Amino acid sequence: MNGNTIIFKNSPGIISSAAIGGKMEGDGPMGEYFDKINEDPYMSADTFEKGESLLQKQAVTHALEKAALKASEIDVMFGGDLLNQCVGTTYGVRYFEIPFLGIYGACSTMSEGLLLAALFADGGYADKAVAVTSSHFCTAERQYRFPLNYGGQRTPTSQYTATAGGALIVAAGGDAPYVRGAAVGKIVDMGVTDANNMGAAMAPAAYSTIKQFFEDTGLEPAAFDAIVTGDLGKVGSRILCELFERDGISIRDNHKDCGLMLYSFEDQDVHAGGSGCGCAGSMLCGYFIPKLREGGIKNILFTATGALMSPTVNQQGESIPSVAHAVWLSHDKG
Amino acid sequence: MNGNTIIFKNSPGIISSAAIGGKMEGDGPMGEYFDKINEDPYMSADTFEKGESLLQKQAVTHALEKAALKASEIDVMFGGDLLNQCVGTTYGVRYFEIPFLGIYGACSTMSEGLLLAALFADGGYADKAVAVTSSHFCTAERQYRFPLNYGGQRTPTSQYTATAGGALIVAAGGDAPYVRGAAVGKIVDMGVTDANNMGAAMAPAAYSTIKQFFEDTGLEPAAFDAIVTGDLGKVGSRILCELFERDGISIRDNHKDCGLMLYSFEDQDVHAGGSGCGCAGSMLCGYFIPKLREGGIKNILFTATGALMSPTVNQQGESIPSVAHAVWLSHDKG
Repeated sequence: MNGNTIIFKNSPGIISSAAIGGKMEGDGPMGEYFDKINEDPYMSADTFEKGESLLQKQAVTHALEKAALKASEIDVMFGGDLLNQCVGTTYGVRYFEIPFLGIYGACSTMSEGLLLAALFADGGYADKAVAVTSSHFCTAERQYRFPLNYGGQRTPTSQYTATAGGALIVAAGGDAPYVRGAAVGKIVDMGVTDANNMGAAMAPAAYSTIKQFFEDTGLEPAAFDAIVTGDLGKVGSRILCELFERDGISIRDNHKDCGLMLYSFEDQDVHAGGSGCGCAGSMLCGYFIPKLREGGIKNILFTATGALMSPTVNQQGESIPSVAHAVWLSHDKG
Repeated sequence: MNGNTIIFKNSPGIISSAAIGGKMEGDGPMGEYFDKINEDPYMSADTFEKGESLLQKQAVTHALEKAALKASEIDVMFGGDLLNQCVGTTYGVRYFEIPFLGIYGACSTMSEGLLLAALFADGGYADKAVAVTSSHFCTAERQYRFPLNYGGQRTPTSQYTATAGGALIVAAGGDAPYVRGAAVGKIVDMGVTDANNMGAAMAPAAYSTIKQFFEDTGLEPAAFDAIVTGDLGKVGSRILCELFERDGISIRDNHKDCGLMLYSFEDQDVHAGGSGCGCAGSMLCGYFIPKLREGGIKNILFTATGALMSPTVNQQGESIPSVAHAVWLSHDKG
C-alpha cells in the first residue's frame, strides 16, 4: 500500500455483472438498467427477509448466466448486507456452494467486496471471484426504524432504502472494465447522532477516502468521468462537495451519487434519495459497469459509503462512525 | 487456489497477539494466558455493548504495544463480531484510524480475519495487517436469547458465550509463527434448526473445510500437533470426530476445541462449552500463537466455525447455515 491505496499489478477485469430491483426501482429513471425487476416485495417468499435473500440469489444467478459460468467455476465469493448477522447474504448464497467470505461494511459493502475480489484475482489467489450485496426497503425499515404497518413519518433528511441487489464477477486476465486500484477507508466519526441523516454522517468518510486516494496516486478529479458515491443523497452529496471546496477542489461537475440517480424526485417519495447496499450495488452492476465496458465512460472512482452503527448503540446515545472504500474502474488496462 | 486452499508464497509471520478476557475467563483453566482480565462486565462503560467495544480496543492496544508499533504503522485492519451491524468492532476500533475492512463470519471471524490479513501481507498489499474480534456473554445473551434479568433456563446443548477479545498482527517478512496456508470454507447447511445447539449446526462446516484442506494439500491430520476448532463444544466436537471416522480418519488424538479448553466443566456452569468469536480469538492469540512461537507446538490447523443465522430468520423457521475457514500456522517457514 501507498498510504491507503493499492494499485493493482495486473488490473483484473469485471467479466459479468447483474442488477436486480423491486417495483420502485423498476418504475424509476434507471429501471431499464436492471436485469430483473421483482414486482412482489416478498419475491414469492413468505417473509421480507427471505425475499431479500432471493435478491442475492437472483443477482448471482444472472451474473453467472451472463458469463456462461457455473457456480463451481468460481473460486471465492464476498458478500454482505444490512440485516442483522448479514442473513440476506448467507441464506441467499448458501445454494451455490462457493467458498464464502462474509463482509460487513453497511452500504459500503459493494466497494469492499469489489476491492477484495479484485485483490484475490490480482494476487493470483483466485481466478474468478464474485462480490454480491443487497438491501430491501421492508427489511431495513422494520429492523432499523419502525414496523411497516406503523406508517411512521419520515424526516426530510431521511433516505429510502432500495430494494435491490447487485453481483459481479472479477477474473484474472478478464476484459474491460478493469479494476486498476483501490483505497481502503478509515473509520470516520464526526459526532453525528441523527440516524435519520445518514448522508451527513457518511459524507466525511467519503471525503477522507477520496482525498487520500488522490494524494496517494497523484491523480486529479478531472481524470475521472465520474466520482461515484453510494448513497449520500441530497444532504451528504452537498456536504461532500463543500468539504472538497474548502480545499479548493471542485468535484461538482463529475460527482454522481447512486442515491440521487436511482429514483425520480418528482414522481417518487424518497425524501433525500435512495440508500442501502443495493442502491450502490445495483447502479454499479447495472449501469456503470456496462457503460465502462462499452467505453461510453472511461474512468470512475466508485466510492460506496457505509454507516457503521446499530439501532442499539444509537439509542444508547452513540454517534455514527462511517467508512468508505474507493475503487478505480477503467475502460483501459493502463 | 487449489480447490479451496491457498498456500502462501511468502509465509508471513504473526509478530504480535493479545488476548483479553472477563472474570469467568480469568477464573478458568486458561486464565494465565490472557494479557488482561476485566473483572467488571461493563469494563467501566455504561452499557454492555460499549463494554464489548472496549474488549476490542484493549486487544488491539495490547497487540500494538507488544510489538512496539503505533497504529499509524498498520496498513489495514480486519475486524468483526457477533453484534448486529458488528458494532463491537466499529465502535472499538474507530480511535485507531487504521484503514478498516469489516468482516462477518460469526464465530469464524478470527479465522477469516487471520486469512485475509495473511493474504494481504503475502501478496505485498500490506506490510502489517491486524485481525481483531470479540464476544461478550451479556451482549450476546440479550441479543440472541433473553434479557439477562429474565434468568432463562439453558439447555444441556447450549454454550456459554465467552467475554473475550483477541487481536493479532501479521507482517510480511515477520518471524514465527508463520501463516503457511488457508482454506476458505463453503456455507454448509444440514438443516439443524435448534438455536440452542450451535455445535451440531457448525460441525459439518468444520468437517467440510478441514477435509477439503487435506485433499487440496495432500497433508495428513498427523502432520498437525493440533487441529483446532473454534467453539464446537461437547456436542459439535463429538460430531466432527464421528464424521471423520466415517471416512476412516481419526482426528481424536489431535483435535482441540477452544470451547472445550476455555472453562472448567467441573467448576464453571457452561453446559456444552464456551462459544463466541472471542472464544477462538482469545485462545488463538493468548495460547496457541505464543506456543507456536516458542516451538512447543510446531503446526496447527486453526479452524474457527460460525453459525450464519439471526434470531429473526431462525424464528421464521429457517435452519442454520454455517461456515468454517482453516488456517495453517507453523513454527517453521517451510
